[in-house]
Amino acid sequence: MGGLSTETAAQVADEVADEVLLARAFLSRVGEPCNIPMWAFVRKAGAVDAARAIAAGRAPEEVQKHAAPRLAEADPWADLETAAALGVRLVVPESDRWPHFGLACLEFAAEVRLGTYRAGRRSHENYGEPIPPLALWAKGPGDPSTLGHRTVGMVGSRACTQYGEHVATQWSYELAQQGVTVISGGAYGIDACAHRGALAAEGDTVLISAAGLDRPYPPGNARLFDRVAERGLLISEGPPGMAPHRHRFLMRNRLIAALSSGTVIVEAARRSGAANTASHCQRLGRPLMAVPGPVTSAMSAGCHELIRRESDPALLVASSAEILAVVGSPGEGMPDPGDARTTDIRAELDRLDPAARRVFEGLTAGKFSRPDEIALRAGIAPLEVFRALPTLELADLVEVGEAGYRVAARVRDELK
Amino acid sequence: MGGLSTETAAQVADEVADEVLLARAFLSRVGEPCNIPMWAFVRKAGAVDAARAIAAGRAPEEVQKHAAPRLAEADPWADLETAAALGVRLVVPESDRWPHFGLACLEFAAEVRLGTYRAGRRSHENYGEPIPPLALWAKGPGDPSTLGHRTVGMVGSRACTQYGEHVATQWSYELAQQGVTVISGGAYGIDACAHRGALAAEGDTVLISAAGLDRPYPPGNARLFDRVAERGLLISEGPPGMAPHRHRFLMRNRLIAALSSGTVIVEAARRSGAANTASHCQRLGRPLMAVPGPVTSAMSAGCHELIRRESDPALLVASSAEILAVVGSPGEGMPDPGDARTTDIRAELDRLDPAARRVFEGLTAGKFSRPDEIALRAGIAPLEVFRALPTLELADLVEVGEAGYRVAARVRDELK
Repeated sequence: MGGLSTETAAQVADEVADEVLLARAFLSRVGEPCNIPMWAFVRKAGAVDAARAIAAGRAPEEVQKHAAPRLAEADPWADLETAAALGVRLVVPESDRWPHFGLACLEFAAEVRLGTYRAGRRSHENYGEPIPPLALWAKGPGDPSTLGHRTVGMVGSRACTQYGEHVATQWSYELAQQGVTVISGGAYGIDACAHRGALAAEGDTVLISAAGLDRPYPPGNARLFDRVAERGLLISEGPPGMAPHRHRFLMRNRLIAALSSGTVIVEAARRSGAANTASHCQRLGRPLMAVPGPVTSAMSAGCHELIRRESDPALLVASSAEILAVVGSPGEGMPDPGDARTTDIRAELDRLDPAARRVFEGLTAGKFSRPDEIALRAGIAPLEVFRALPTLELADLVEVGEAGYRVAARVRDELK
Repeated sequence: MGGLSTETAAQVADEVADEVLLARAFLSRVGEPCNIPMWAFVRKAGAVDAARAIAAGRAPEEVQKHAAPRLAEADPWADLETAAALGVRLVVPESDRWPHFGLACLEFAAEVRLGTYRAGRRSHENYGEPIPPLALWAKGPGDPSTLGHRTVGMVGSRACTQYGEHVATQWSYELAQQGVTVISGGAYGIDACAHRGALAAEGDTVLISAAGLDRPYPPGNARLFDRVAERGLLISEGPPGMAPHRHRFLMRNRLIAALSSGTVIVEAARRSGAANTASHCQRLGRPLMAVPGPVTSAMSAGCHELIRRESDPALLVASSAEILAVVGSPGEGMPDPGDARTTDIRAELDRLDPAARRVFEGLTAGKFSRPDEIALRAGIAPLEVFRALPTLELADLVEVGEAGYRVAARVRDELK
């Protein structure tokens, strides 16, 4: 694989070697997202060597078999040139622009899945697998690296009601005004309203597409895609030209769940795609929220089901302030007037479940720690750390910054 | 206190000695509901001796002081005659018609309160106290003794919306059709709709009034009171003539919570009377349910708050079938199609929390047991038994009959 012109390289990514970019572009073309053997091989060999091995037919059998159908047509150089012409850049894990913070939960979940896969207990052809992307194609001024910090996934039915449209647009507007980035999938209905509300507030919004960024889907939302690209961020796992196949929508949902500090289902019918998004949130330890509506509306039935269920229920949210209380950093959000917090910190800590308590004890008061660092210090599985952090955050026991988590100021002061 | 004519006695209660009836009528006139010393004294001395002691000024100081304001005007004979003329009868704890099953939870809660009261940690002038009534005045063909078995409390805002009216009327109609008795307070708005829906289905409904039964309150609902008296049951703690003072509404709410297998809040504003009903349910171990609605409706805000809260949240219910699943006996209700139950009973039992597990082990497979019997066998506090039973019922692990609880048929078959 040859080198890129300096101009193109500067346009597509910063501080990453050309050979890495070309390798990731190649992998993103030949590999379908969520394939466990492919992801494990790239992680072990590194992108450049993995790409070379696959191109030369020397990769492990499963990987080679997976890549075979697209091997002949793969031309990473052309893909990068096409992308650059469209204003699309390639963001790779080797870059500082990669959303490490947001995707760490997928990395951890993938480790767990890799274990069960190796133990032969799970097929790798399940498109709902929580496997990190091999690369992300991005367009727009937004910075992918901050995703996962004060970001809200707002999704729901395409065939929504006026009530759902009103709630999605209004809350997205209000959240964007509070500096929260609204993430959605660019579909008709709730998704479009979520993007539009944030745009109306001149706030940040991220559209994660299931198809290549030259193929806005649905085509009727092409103008919306353009508007998001102008002031927010378009993201796709696939290179330009990738078609919007059904399974890619399911895979896309895992990215919305992972890159959002919390996800809100605004309207959903029973047994709809909301269940898929909900299971991603659950698996990744991300807060799931749902909006209630009239019991007479079929479009709220899926939300009510998620709120009602016994295992991992969604939190009912009735205002954007209640969402902000979940995804915002303590002190930054609007105060919840109904929430009478006890001031006895030690009693609060005693009430934590043992896992949350250990996670808390793995935090430091001053420096922000990444979840993997906390896991190491607490001697607890990384996934457990992800599950416990929202609890600690909701209880205002931790503070969230872009570099991770630390003990909240009010707790530091109290325990001094 | 003299004897009643045979006719009057037959009209006002069966199988209870005249002196008991007169004593209870007297106590119900001189004692305000929810007074701990009065209740404790009557329980210890018995109704007849307690009434004699109070009439003679020989009762303990606190009791005497409480009864003093109404002592001069007390005329139980006249009250019973007036009641009989109105078609109102007196139901007393000494009678088989007393709702022993429904009020057992109040008896247990009162025991607990008596302990904290004696320890000096609580005043007795709190009208929210869970103290059993001294007597109940009743009108209509309904049988008070079965209350608490397949009964739904349905309450909510007086200033409700058309949505709330629709839901209350429709669900009450559907529940009554399924043989569930709908209990409410006869107020404007949700309460009235709850009674009307059950009447429209020619089903059973119970109206618990905060005032004497000759004083329908609000007066605008007098016709509704009459209709309930014709085919259901009117109940009041006070004798004819008792005025509808504010604190009597709060005390009335505890009776709705106690006599209902579960209570549903249909619509409620934030910081409304719903909170009072909710705390009664919580205290008595009775399931609390709430109906979601548009987040844009202030009349659903109280319901959303109850569903959202971390401690003792209300269960969101989106259909009458979901209510029936909570209050109906297993096997009698409509099946929930969305509920995939595991068939591995032992695993289910292992997942129960320790208290629920002990309660389950206090049940027998064949004979129905009363909660106090279960408490004795399980070696666990009666209130804990009440808290655990709804969980076991929802999980279809127990069966409910009028005589109490036993192991569910599917469990008996499985563990044979």
